[in-house]
Order: sequence, then C-alpha cells, then structure tokens
Amino acid sequence: MSGRQLHLNVNVLHAGVYPSAWRLPQSQPDAFLDLDHFVRVARVAERGKLDAVFLADTPAINDRIDHRPFNALEPTVLLAALATATRHVGLVATASTTYNEPFNLARRFASLDLVSRGRAGWNVVTTADAAAGRNFGFAGASEHGARYARAREFTDLVHALWDSWEDDAFIGDKASGRFIDTAKVHAVEHRGAHYAVAGPLTVPRSAQGRPVTFQAGGSEDGRELAAATADAVFSLAQTIEDGTAYARDLRARAARYGRRPDALVILPGLATVIGATEAEARRRQDELWDLVPVEYSLARLAGTLRLDPSRLELDKPLPEPLPLPPDANHTMFLGTLALARRDRLTVRQLLRALGGGVGHRIVVGTPEAIADDIEAWFRAGAADGFNLMPDVLPDGLETFVDAVVPILQRRGLFRRDYTGATLRDHLGLPRPASRFAATDAAASA
Amino acid sequence: MSGRQLHLNVNVLHAGVYPSAWRLPQSQPDAFLDLDHFVRVARVAERGKLDAVFLADTPAINDRIDHRPFNALEPTVLLAALATATRHVGLVATASTTYNEPFNLARRFASLDLVSRGRAGWNVVTTADAAAGRNFGFAGASEHGARYARAREFTDLVHALWDSWEDDAFIGDKASGRFIDTAKVHAVEHRGAHYAVAGPLTVPRSAQGRPVTFQAGGSEDGRELAAATADAVFSLAQTIEDGTAYARDLRARAARYGRRPDALVILPGLATVIGATEAEARRRQDELWDLVPVEYSLARLAGTLRLDPSRLELDKPLPEPLPLPPDANHTMFLGTLALARRDRLTVRQLLRALGGGVGHRIVVGTPEAIADDIEAWFRAGAADGFNLMPDVLPDGLETFVDAVVPILQRRGLFRRDYTGATLRDHLGLPRPASRFAATDAAASA
Repeated sequence: MSGRQLHLNVNVLHAGVYPSAWRLPQSQPDAFLDLDHFVRVARVAERGKLDAVFLADTPAINDRIDHRPFNALEPTVLLAALATATRHVGLVATASTTYNEPFNLARRFASLDLVSRGRAGWNVVTTADAAAGRNFGFAGASEHGARYARAREFTDLVHALWDSWEDDAFIGDKASGRFIDTAKVHAVEHRGAHYAVAGPLTVPRSAQGRPVTFQAGGSEDGRELAAATADAVFSLAQTIEDGTAYARDLRARAARYGRRPDALVILPGLATVIGATEAEARRRQDELWDLVPVEYSLARLAGTLRLDPSRLELDKPLPEPLPLPPDANHTMFLGTLALARRDRLTVRQLLRALGGGVGHRIVVGTPEAIADDIEAWFRAGAADGFNLMPDVLPDGLETFVDAVVPILQRRGLFRRDYTGATLRDHLGLPRPASRFAATDAAASA
Repeated sequence: MSGRQLHLNVNVLHAGVYPSAWRLPQSQPDAFLDLDHFVRVARVAERGKLDAVFLADTPAINDRIDHRPFNALEPTVLLAALATATRHVGLVATASTTYNEPFNLARRFASLDLVSRGRAGWNVVTTADAAAGRNFGFAGASEHGARYARAREFTDLVHALWDSWEDDAFIGDKASGRFIDTAKVHAVEHRGAHYAVAGPLTVPRSAQGRPVTFQAGGSEDGRELAAATADAVFSLAQTIEDGTAYARDLRARAARYGRRPDALVILPGLATVIGATEAEARRRQDELWDLVPVEYSLARLAGTLRLDPSRLELDKPLPEPLPLPPDANHTMFLGTLALARRDRLTVRQLLRALGGGVGHRIVVGTPEAIADDIEAWFRAGAADGFNLMPDVLPDGLETFVDAVVPILQRRGLFRRDYTGATLRDHLGLPRPASRFAATDAAASA
C-alpha cells in the first residue's frame, strides 16, 4: 500500500440515514437509546479499519420524532462509553460553540482524548436551530454572523486550553515527591470579546497532542472558520465538479491563513444503499422510500427551503421564485436546490432523490459500483475520503465493510490495517506541538 | 439478610485519599490520568457489592499539583467509560450548578443513566473556589447565597427535564410507523429568576426513572438544598454525636418539605487505613504521613481556615481568635476546628489527624475494628452507610472489600450480592414517577 490514501468516517445516525431505517425487519426500533447498538456499529467500523465513528448533534428535539429516531444521547458521554469497547477507531463528537462554556467543552473533549488514548475529535458547530436556543434562555436561534464570531474565538480558546500543558509537565517521581512541573503548565489568560478564561486546563495533552478539530463549513463564514481552525471538514457536494470546486476554494483559504493546503482532510457526505446487484440495491431503496411518510419528507423539504409546505405540489417542480438561502442549513439548502434544478425534478422525484430529507449525495448500487464512485471522486481531488452515511445501521455498514472495503483495499486506496494508534495517525495529520512549548523554546533561544 | 442495610460508596480520589498515596511502592504515579486504573477500582468496588463509585470534582486546578494528583478528567466522561467496564455498581459524578447550563447538565447525566442502564447519580455542588470562577469569566468565586439560590432553581429545573418524557412515550411500532407518542413528551417551559429553558429533554427516562441526586450539605443553605432536593447526602462528621445531630437535623428539614424523613440516605465521609494488626495499620499511616511534605499540609490547613500560613506554628495549638467560618468549605472548616479543639491538638498533631488535609474522619485499624466502628455509627443512627475514602487506591479498597466487607456481611449489615439492577435499587430508593405523568392522570381523572 502506498500513495495517497482514502479516509473513511461513518456518521452513526442511530438506525441509519433513511428516516425509515428503523422500520426494516432487521432493525431494532429503540437502537437510538441502546448502548449495545452503538457498540456493534463502532466494532463493525473498527473491523473495516475506518478512521472514525462520528455523532452529529443538536441540544434540542428539532425533528418529527413521531416518525423517526433522532440524536438523543449526549455525544461525548456516548463516545466515552464506546472508548472502552473499541481500541483503534477514532471517536468524533459534535458540540456547539453557541451553547457551551469553552472551559467545559475543552475539558470534556480532552478527557475523552485521554480516556480513548488519543482517538477523540471535536466537530465544531454553531447550532442554527431555534429549538436549541430556547433550551438556553434565548427566544430562538442567535444570528448567523454573531454565532460565527463567537465560534472563532471559542475554537481558538479551546485550542489554547488543549495546549496549556507541555508534553513533559508530568514528573511523578516517587523519591523526590515532585509530581508535576508547574512551570510547564500554563494559564491561557484569555480575555476576548465574548469569553474570559484563565486556565490552565485540568487535563494534560494526549497521545495525539490534542483532539482533531472537524468542521462542516458550507457558508462563507463556515468556510473561513474551517480554513482557519479545522483539521478536517465534513462537506456536502452532489457532483464531482462541486466537490472539486469546494476543495479548491477551501485549500486556497487555508493557504491565506498560512496553512499548508493539504493540512485539511475534506470528507463529503455519502449516503449508501448497497445490493449484490443493481436491481437488488434499487429494491432496497424502494423499500426504504416506501416506508417514509410523504408528509414527513414534505415537511422536512419545506423546512430546508423555508417554504410554506402548502406551496409544494408533489407532481410539479419546485415553486419559483424560492426564498434566498437562509443563514442556517445554508449548505443543505443549496445542495437541495442544485439537485432539483440539475435534473429538473418534480417535488416527488426530489423527495425520493433526497431519501426523505438527507440532503447528502446518495449512491445506490453494487459494491463494485460504490467503489468506482468513491475512487472517481478521490482521484479527481473532489474528496480525501468520505463521511459515510449507511442507509441502515448496523446492516448497511456491515455490507460496506465486508464488500466495498476489500475492493478499495485491493485497489491500494485504503489501509488493510491500522498503522498508527491515534486519530491523527489515521488521518495522516501531524501531532501539533503545544504553542506554549514553542514560546518557551523561542524565549530560551 | 434482613432489616436495615448499610450503603457503601467509594470516593475514587485518584491514587487514594492521602496526598502521598501515589508515592507508595504499589502505586502507579500517573493513575489519575489512566482509564485502566479507574476500571480496576470500579471492578474492585463491584466485587465488594458496593452501592456506587463516586468522583469529586471542580472545574479548575485549585490544589498544589506540584505535590500530588488531582481530579483531572471530567467525571461524566470518565464514568461513561466505566459504564461499559462494569455491570452493577452505581456511577456518581460531581457537577457544578454555578458553571454549567441546566439543559446540558441534565442531558449529560440522563445520557449516562441510559448508557449505564440506570446506574447514574449526580452530586450537586455550587463550586466555591475562586480558581473555578476565573475559568468562566468571573473574577473569583460568586457569593455563597447567590450560588445557593441558583443551585435550588437549577436542581429543580434539572429534575423537571429528567421527567419530561413519560415512561411509555416510546412506541417504535414498525407496522404503523409511529415512533414516539409526542403527547407524552413535555416541554417544561421554565422561566425563573436565573434560567429560561423550554425543554423537553432529548433523553427519555431510564430504568431508575432519573439519576439519583446527591448533595454534600453542611452549611445552612446546603442543608436546605439537600433537604429539599437530594436523595442522598455526603456529610462530614468527626463523632457519632455530630453525625446523629446532623442526621436528625436533616431529616427534620426534609419533613418540613413534605418528604419522608427516611427518604434521605446519609453517608458521612470515612477515610480508612487498614492493617492485619493495629500496629501494622499504624505503620501504614506513619508511612503515608511521612511522605506528605509538611509545607503542603500547612498550606492546605491555612487555606481551609482562611489563615496566613505564617500564623501556624507546628508545636502550638491553633492561633486564637480564628476567622469566622467562610462561606466556602464551611463544613470542612468546622470539622477541622472541632477536631483540633476536642483533642487540644497542636498544629502538627492536627495535620497528622487530618491526614494531610483530608478533613474527613480517619479510622486506622484492623478489619474487625473498622467493621466495629461502621456498625456503631450505623446502629446509633449517625449514618445510613459511608462514603469510603481508602488511603491508597486500588490497594486500600481491595483490603476493605476482601477483609471488612465479609465481616459486615456475616453480621447481616451488608448485602452478599446485588438484589436490584439500578442505583436506586441499591440505595433502597423508590423509582420516582414523572411529574408530568401524575399531572396527566389527575387531568384525565
């Protein structure tokens, strides 16, 4: 195995990316609350040598839970439980910069990073939905620009806290009684527009230095935040052209922040429906689609497009003119629109193409066809890998791991085993030095 | 086994309650950062059929870490990792009402409760120390009364969020596609003096209904909070008389809140140093004490008593007059003072009696003597059980489990095996009904 390698992450959307996944015969309806389900999924991911498992999140109920499961459990707690049940796979949790205290968030992820021996990642989100705001004393969501201004300061501050212990601060010498070299544990003394935090963190750096920072930057502000602060990006692209343009744009922005363009690992979302034959895959997609109540997918589409549902007619195209892209779910809005216009879809066809509200690209086919698609995007520079969204979990991931991964391995595109211990190792990212260690070296030079 | 039963909880103070515990030959210096150490301790606790393991916490470094380990890892993350490694033992984490958002805290503990299948507990603290305040935008600690006013509203709100799902809200019927009965998932619509939270929580109720609420109420405000909201209390008492008076006072307060006096499980702190003979136990205590740097214990005593360390002379009694009890660490202040005055101790003798700054009662002796002490307190009504603080971990807990627990079992005071599945089962606490379910029943009656 040599050359540039694919990175595969699985988005553990409880029962699977289809809203109807829980209704298939092989699915367990209460899986979204069952640790054993998540352990099974994580172990399948590890068997497939995937880079990481990932949990999306928002701190509110903002979907139609009368129809479908949702992200109920707090992700850092759930991933900490998975840390004990796995050994290699990375553990990436979403957490909001709008509704957390930087010190608490930094500490929770640093703790997860130690508990998992260097396998933690933080997916930075600003949490656009109004339901979340109402759980934190606000009347609704806070404004897009304000959220991103806080997010930048928050993320920089979390990174500083993660660096506050130099790597060799711990002594632990029984004979002398010297436990920690406090000269190597640094206050951060941050005083910014939104936060004032003294530090140091209570947690030393981990095997990978600090947790990997993920971001899902689609809007202008989101791209800037990702370019400035992220190690890896969850993106949304419906075509290779879109994917390539996004990657080029993001790498150029990163360069403007003085970063190496290849410092960013770009992972578009990819929903998969796999069958032994093309026809079998189509039948599986039909089965999943037929079990999604049409009123659910209509309501979700109307929500994404910020339209009154009564304006959507099933056998007509989308109504024109559509509203301008909203500041929340901006990427999904544009992705949905691109899909509808490119293929001149009726609302019914669009709903089906969206798989009941997914927004991300869906590929349906044989393992060979899926591998071909992945390879094409990877070789074109539209992706460094994918954020996989199996149709049904664990079932769809098992098929991916048992049938698609071996093809990618035979083609020399994907690891046959883990070659490192940490999530940074898996992603090919260097272990960052502590900024405080660098300052000291400069000071003593 | 019949009659009233003891409850035993172990306070997992990293390497042990003695500041020098990490320096003993059998100790692992970096245990405070090592998941495997905590797994070993939790499994020993489970082998001993203990009710729960407990993690103290403050979100800051506020001790002399140049000399000793501290609570580095965030407790809910660490306990979630322990949930996968244990099956029966309760998992109790400390979290601050002053430096958390109620929605996030409620969600994190509810998630831990589901992940552990009903074994979670929350130890409510208001976090008195100034170092913590500086990590959350404050110049220092906030004022005692204000902290407790927030704490009461915060705790009531968390309990309401934990109740927001009725027990039978989940349907998961594949045939009809009905997933959750949203009529049984309730907004809390809280608008109080300090918090505004809409709810519902994203997490259903657990096998035990909701996490067990612990409190360590020593001050007047603390006792009121415990009497109004807690299921169990970590207390501090140096004598059976103090313990009995505290228990009587707290039960009377609970009754004034309309609660059954026996609804509260009272667990005084108990540090143990165990030897096969009295002389061996004393030698072990000497060894631990000799390894505590005197400047460390002097600084800690001065901190507890809010004195300038220069006013403390090793071979004289405490200087008089002492300052009035501070609003922070009020209980430890009074406990320390009581110990010093009762036995007319010099500062040096007091430091040794405190074990280097522990504040809680220390018993030193054979397994039989420890069991006698526990039984005497239990029968006198000074304790429903104990919050154990072994001198050294896991070593001191192993000795307790292997040598003291069998004596307590033979005397019919402690369970020979777990008889229930949840922490409430272990503590003999009933599973609380959801307040919303009760309202509905009344409304439909």
